[in-house]
Amino acid sequence: VAKIGVSIVGGTGYGAGELLRYLASHPKAEVVSVISSSKGGESVSSMHSHLRGFYDMPFSSKLSVDDFSDCEHVVVFAGLPHGVSAAEVPRLAETVAAVKGKVIDLSGDHRLRIQAEHAEFYGSSARDEDFAGKFAYGLTEINREQISGARLVANPGCLASACILAAAPFAGEVVGNIVFDAKTGISGAGRTPSDVTHLPLRHGSMQAYKVLNHRHEPEIAQALCDVSGTKPSTFFVPHLLPTTRGIYVGAYFEVSGDISQKEAEETLRSFYEASPFVRVENTPPELRNVVGTNFCDLQVIVRGRQVVVLGALDNLGKGMAGTAIQNMNIMCELSETTGLDTPSLGLV
Amino acid sequence: VAKIGVSIVGGTGYGAGELLRYLASHPKAEVVSVISSSKGGESVSSMHSHLRGFYDMPFSSKLSVDDFSDCEHVVVFAGLPHGVSAAEVPRLAETVAAVKGKVIDLSGDHRLRIQAEHAEFYGSSARDEDFAGKFAYGLTEINREQISGARLVANPGCLASACILAAAPFAGEVVGNIVFDAKTGISGAGRTPSDVTHLPLRHGSMQAYKVLNHRHEPEIAQALCDVSGTKPSTFFVPHLLPTTRGIYVGAYFEVSGDISQKEAEETLRSFYEASPFVRVENTPPELRNVVGTNFCDLQVIVRGRQVVVLGALDNLGKGMAGTAIQNMNIMCELSETTGLDTPSLGLV
Amino acid sequence: VAKIGVSIVGGTGYGAGELLRYLASHPKAEVVSVISSSKGGESVSSMHSHLRGFYDMPFSSKLSVDDFSDCEHVVVFAGLPHGVSAAEVPRLAETVAAVKGKVIDLSGDHRLRIQAEHAEFYGSSARDEDFAGKFAYGLTEINREQISGARLVANPGCLASACILAAAPFAGEVVGNIVFDAKTGISGAGRTPSDVTHLPLRHGSMQAYKVLNHRHEPEIAQALCDVSGTKPSTFFVPHLLPTTRGIYVGAYFEVSGDISQKEAEETLRSFYEASPFVRVENTPPELRNVVGTNFCDLQVIVRGRQVVVLGALDNLGKGMAGTAIQNMNIMCELSETTGLDTPSLGLV
Amino acid sequence: VAKIGVSIVGGTGYGAGELLRYLASHPKAEVVSVISSSKGGESVSSMHSHLRGFYDMPFSSKLSVDDFSDCEHVVVFAGLPHGVSAAEVPRLAETVAAVKGKVIDLSGDHRLRIQAEHAEFYGSSARDEDFAGKFAYGLTEINREQISGARLVANPGCLASACILAAAPFAGEVVGNIVFDAKTGISGAGRTPSDVTHLPLRHGSMQAYKVLNHRHEPEIAQALCDVSGTKPSTFFVPHLLPTTRGIYVGAYFEVSGDISQKEAEETLRSFYEASPFVRVENTPPELRNVVGTNFCDLQVIVRGRQVVVLGALDNLGKGMAGTAIQNMNIMCELSETTGLDTPSLGLV
Repeated sequence: VAKIGVSIVGGTGYGAGELLRYLASHPKAEVVSVISSSKGGESVSSMHSHLRGFYDMPFSSKLSVDDFSDCEHVVVFAGLPHGVSAAEVPRLAETVAAVKGKVIDLSGDHRLRIQAEHAEFYGSSARDEDFAGKFAYGLTEINREQISGARLVANPGCLASACILAAAPFAGEVVGNIVFDAKTGISGAGRTPSDVTHLPLRHGSMQAYKVLNHRHEPEIAQALCDVSGTKPSTFFVPHLLPTTRGIYVGAYFEVSGDISQKEAEETLRSFYEASPFVRVENTPPELRNVVGTNFCDLQVIVRGRQVVVLGALDNLGKGMAGTAIQNMNIMCELSETTGLDTPSLGLV
Repeated sequence: VAKIGVSIVGGTGYGAGELLRYLASHPKAEVVSVISSSKGGESVSSMHSHLRGFYDMPFSSKLSVDDFSDCEHVVVFAGLPHGVSAAEVPRLAETVAAVKGKVIDLSGDHRLRIQAEHAEFYGSSARDEDFAGKFAYGLTEINREQISGARLVANPGCLASACILAAAPFAGEVVGNIVFDAKTGISGAGRTPSDVTHLPLRHGSMQAYKVLNHRHEPEIAQALCDVSGTKPSTFFVPHLLPTTRGIYVGAYFEVSGDISQKEAEETLRSFYEASPFVRVENTPPELRNVVGTNFCDLQVIVRGRQVVVLGALDNLGKGMAGTAIQNMNIMCELSETTGLDTPSLGLV
Repeated sequence: VAKIGVSIVGGTGYGAGELLRYLASHPKAEVVSVISSSKGGESVSSMHSHLRGFYDMPFSSKLSVDDFSDCEHVVVFAGLPHGVSAAEVPRLAETVAAVKGKVIDLSGDHRLRIQAEHAEFYGSSARDEDFAGKFAYGLTEINREQISGARLVANPGCLASACILAAAPFAGEVVGNIVFDAKTGISGAGRTPSDVTHLPLRHGSMQAYKVLNHRHEPEIAQALCDVSGTKPSTFFVPHLLPTTRGIYVGAYFEVSGDISQKEAEETLRSFYEASPFVRVENTPPELRNVVGTNFCDLQVIVRGRQVVVLGALDNLGKGMAGTAIQNMNIMCELSETTGLDTPSLGLV
Repeated sequence: VAKIGVSIVGGTGYGAGELLRYLASHPKAEVVSVISSSKGGESVSSMHSHLRGFYDMPFSSKLSVDDFSDCEHVVVFAGLPHGVSAAEVPRLAETVAAVKGKVIDLSGDHRLRIQAEHAEFYGSSARDEDFAGKFAYGLTEINREQISGARLVANPGCLASACILAAAPFAGEVVGNIVFDAKTGISGAGRTPSDVTHLPLRHGSMQAYKVLNHRHEPEIAQALCDVSGTKPSTFFVPHLLPTTRGIYVGAYFEVSGDISQKEAEETLRSFYEASPFVRVENTPPELRNVVGTNFCDLQVIVRGRQVVVLGALDNLGKGMAGTAIQNMNIMCELSETTGLDTPSLGLV
């Protein structure tokens, strides 16, 4: 691969910031433009102060196909809010069609395949059903082949990614409910200050939210059904942690008969044998080991028919920008790990 | 009540510190001695620096019945490590027998009624089976009557308290497993520094521990069985939060038929009608609202036959010292809320 | 004292919440109304969720003198924003004039005595110069006598309180600059979410702000001049800590000749001999020991002519609501410590 | 450069972990051995769990020159405790002398040039005065030339690095004291649990330590004297922040005459013109922008003759492992930024 030309639309958000951070160390990708409808002309690093010296060019106000003139591949990341994405992404895809540009949508607008389900969980935001039908679901580990040939990819939800990766290897064996208790850092709420992100309300505290009522629950069910052929019955309850980054999930379920610890671990290891970013461990995962990376650490523990799978990943990394770049890599015929193979800080 | 004479044995630990803090504002109790085998002669506040000016008297090295000469009631709190408590508490009880002294044991040594189960979960620490048989289980809300007449009380485990309070109102209706996903602040690990309490390993992180293998799981099952008559099947997984205080628990289970949100709330409210420290809410509990207090905040959410109960309490408060004082109050014929009826800081 | 009737104007802010929390345990004060221009009719605890069960009465929309019918003393706390306070407090004072009501203003509008200085640091917010001239400056420890006879008190700034308490005992001896390096928890920014309070920007981070340009610097100079007769030359730089509550300040200066450690400690102890909320210690103060309280912990360390005074207090406690209630107590002829004499949680 | 062979002695500590993390992305360096006297045979990643998959080889128990057989350059990093380093480093240097190996000592044992001063601040730990005299002081930005030709480098202290970088550009102009108020994350205390690192004592808290009595104060004075020719008079007070990583420092001093903001910034910028890791900014630095990196962010603010310089860096990065690798680069004729030129996570 000579060069991948990258443009990021919705360039002021945390997703964009994280993409830019990873791309600063990517040997093949070059960020040719960062688009912001509201900050056109200001410097990118003025909105992402940790990137000073790395991205001091101005925001563009509009995607232009001319920016990609000498690129072998063209990838547009859309980091727009839900609803806005449904309206804008068709136009972006059209703009880059002439150069065979691919679009990776970080929003939730093209994840759920059933239009009615999308309408129920994403409210009034209309989306074009036909256009939505063209998207591959972008959780690399369970949909690698389809993604590699896709022009349009719906990047998965952060909480959904953690839950799906934890449960997928056992999806065909579950009897009864799968309980997903998920805990997330506050950065998942984005860069607009609100009560959710207000430090005095969150520090030293914890709180569940959208209990049995979160958009990622149908996304989890859809993906697990893709893997096993059966739609699972789930509980899904997310919680806000008093920290910035990271998702920790416990998946609790029963299988039809007794299972040994060894068998369970083997199930997990063989399922992710070809997945370099999933690390199967024999101690409980720790957020600090995945923060800032594209890794998802998993552990399985069994007792009789009871199975617990614990998973940890970075909501901004493997839960968003990391997977997006992993997808870009395979869509552009690069090794999956290109630009992503670095360890976490360990201490955060 | 004229005066309750209080002695705290194991006076250097966090449990003792929290008892002292509450007792500083208790209108009827007077701390007559704080016992430490290792720090005898040093000032109590030298080990609990936040209590400077409140408890500047020296630690005693031994419990003495003479200290209680003008007290109507005598209460000894034992804040000793598991195992040590089994060895020491019989002697403490004997020492204060002449003044009808009551003993409230904060350790786990007298919680499990079945000797074999105790041996399994508390290892080699021998305990006197007959002596253990004399203890009332000290979770006030579910065992008020027995506690009020008891001379020996086994104060419940912190995580167990949260799980039991969340599930007890529904214990008789559950079909299948109850999944308890519990999250606790680091102070639960006590005042001895270790990797568990090492800030660089915990800050910005999260980790499960003792998965399906924690001492509080049989305690939860025993208490729920007392309430419903049937021993439940449980998953119990605790996690370490990157904060100091507080326990947050999600209890997930199914009931035999569809249940309405209103019915579920009514079940919760009527179960705790006479329990002033349980607050049933219609938004998810927040740790910040219970930290430093004896309150347990609960919310129930249902969907079809699925039920989620969320609970929050302070592991050092309602999870330990708060309940201990609540028990002392009813054992000494005081109102349950005496000295405990203060709101949390709200912002921590 | 039979009863102090209290009204809090600006009842939705963090200052109001903290006043309400302290007043819940005050044996003589009764909160007769909590005023909010925007939330009239809603319950007070709906805006202060940690006070559920303690203040479930509705907000009033207007201060009414009738509310105080059976009160011996009347105290109005004004917790309004800077500027708004200058406009509203004269009216509040007039409303309660008939019942000899006292007003304690938590805002900065009546702290600086020199009108031009006020205009410089508080911008365009006009204030009535004559009315401002009637206020006593409310840092109890240095102005007890004037406060006790006052009808109008300007409660001090939180950062200013910490700096003044640290430096006042030495104010007459300083040669050259006093450097104040102050660190504050995020709750000082109030309850309106903004970038300042946005957890993802603050967690694991630290940042100075308003460097050599903060409103509390002239307030510190004014107070130290009151104590020593000479206006000091100062550096004042505040910083945002990654926590909710507490202010830590280092005051660095030289005195004219060598001073021994013992002399320096003696200076501090004798200055605060009659001040029960200032604790002079011989180890560095810790925020955790003052959080949630009205205490200010101080330590002095000397080397030759160099003097360091370290101070810690809670910005919402001794830095705001605690001092306000301390002032109320002495204005109503109560012991200074009434309702305030409780230790901190120690572990937060 | 073909290849730099690297060995890390004292391989279990946080300094070693951070060196390994940086070196995993270094294009020219190869870690040939990680030495631990106590963990020989165990895997490196068993002690640094965030490095699983990156360093799964075993610890060696002893440095061997044979490990470097095909390396153009040989660099040994000594991450040993103070005192131990003085005893071991001479032997390490001798071991690698045959291959012209260089040694970079992360400890404090060879930083202070005056033997008596070393003895005073590092206690009884004897060191060989002649051997100590062969070390270059390793703060790259102020001693680049000497380091580039050195075989032995004493890597600077973390707090010292921040203070020196903040004050050095003005060292010749200061009149009177320089006050350094430094704040550090807890990881500076290393991986052995103690009260200093005990989360329940540190979370939500802050505390100064070793006030006017810290080993880095003479190191700062020595370095500033090297720059300006005059030994400065200093106050140096470090504080523990409730976070893991990062140092924030305020340097406060006066210069002999009024200085404009523009002049001050120009002084800073020109001093660091050739230093790619020092970023001079016009807003206050933030820890989150330097955590995990080798950057030091500085801002200067002036008022009349008063000057404030604020600085932020990562104690484990620019304060230790980052500078060590920066030194390795220039000692091996590589560009200073090799393997270090990555932005921070921004959100931590």
